[in-house]
Amino acid sequence: MSEKAAFEAGIKLAALFHQFIGAPVSPENAELLERAMESCMRLQPYVVEAEVRINRKKLEKALSSYGYTSLTPEMLYAKVSVEVEGERAVAVMEWDEEKNYPLMRLL
Amino acid sequence: MSEKAAFEAGIKLAALFHQFIGAPVSPENAELLERAMESCMRLQPYVVEAEVRINRKKLEKALSSYGYTSLTPEMLYAKVSVEVEGERAVAVMEWDEEKNYPLMRLL
Amino acid sequence: MSEKAAFEAGIKLAALFHQFIGAPVSPENAELLERAMESCMRLQPYVVEAEVRINRKKLEKALSSYGYTSLTPEMLYAKVSVEVEGERAVAVMEWDEEKNYPLMRLL
Amino acid sequence: MSEKAAFEAGIKLAALFHQFIGAPVSPENAELLERAMESCMRLQPYVVEAEVRINRKKLEKALSSYGYTSLTPEMLYAKVSVEVEGERAVAVMEWDEEKNYPLMRLL
Repeated sequence: MSEKAAFEAGIKLAALFHQFIGAPVSPENAELLERAMESCMRLQPYVVEAEVRINRKKLEKALSSYGYTSLTPEMLYAKVSVEVEGERAVAVMEWDEEKNYPLMRLL
Repeated sequence: MSEKAAFEAGIKLAALFHQFIGAPVSPENAELLERAMESCMRLQPYVVEAEVRINRKKLEKALSSYGYTSLTPEMLYAKVSVEVEGERAVAVMEWDEEKNYPLMRLL
Repeated sequence: MSEKAAFEAGIKLAALFHQFIGAPVSPENAELLERAMESCMRLQPYVVEAEVRINRKKLEKALSSYGYTSLTPEMLYAKVSVEVEGERAVAVMEWDEEKNYPLMRLL
Repeated sequence: MSEKAAFEAGIKLAALFHQFIGAPVSPENAELLERAMESCMRLQPYVVEAEVRINRKKLEKALSSYGYTSLTPEMLYAKVSVEVEGERAVAVMEWDEEKNYPLMRLL
């Protein structure tokens, strides 16, 4: 892995988080939202793979009395692979219960 | 139209705008993004219809050398119908060239 | 209150919410963030008064092990007054514990 | 510079961009918004320095007939220094006219 690949991987995870946290989500549109978020990641430079998942159990628990909620850091998982000048970096964003934090890390 | 319906219509258009402006978009994922944005609007209380369109000509013109751009106010159109206690409001957001502004208005 | 004033009030509350949810916040920058959010609301058409508050107790409880968190719907309060053609509307956004929802309503 | 420092630097720039693009801005609140954005960057792990600037000339040109506009990629500059386990990375986000793109790069 190169520094530049690591840099680009960090960009992708934070872009996803700060663009989409707060978006209206329910079990009905969660999959559509996942695909749209992945499509946004894949457009960005150097991305070779992107996976986004919304935790359905946490989503169900968070639903308001209107049947939906806002996308929260707790329920968002993402994994991205980037390749820059032949060097690859893979990184993950995942809620860390102990840190109470959406931890992003290089694999 | 009631005041409450008008209030709810305003909420929906501004939510769309401030949630999604900045999202990575290209001709490839524009339709998927439109459907995802509509799904987010439809989850919100009182919405009976929602339509979101990304202006493809403006999108093409705005593309970076990486083949995509960030969603801008200039290229975003939306129309929403809400119904609150039997009263309906319909509102539109559309770029106003003269005002240089994403004007939101009740129909 | 007119329909147009109600519409504009709804726009302002939703713009605030969907623009700033997810922003890094701690007891250190909460006041600065409140002032910046108010300044954004005041720029928008027809706004005559804007007040934004971040609930410090909820903020403290939500802190990660890094000493900050992301701005959440639970901790955000806002009140806005707009005046359109002599007609005024006042609206509030506040977390509703029962509905588990950031309720926006006209006063 | 280490890979981890580079990764963290990328996170910070993209977080800034995708959180704040779209925010209402004018010459009146530009400085307050710059300070608020810097405060958000400084809260994040490993940040030792953060600088955010809104290009005033581009801002003036982009103003709507309502005297403000939405924060755009063209007008946003940021520089961040992070330090992870003794290793430092410095990165910049700046509009690239040729690429028509808010380029983020390691220094």
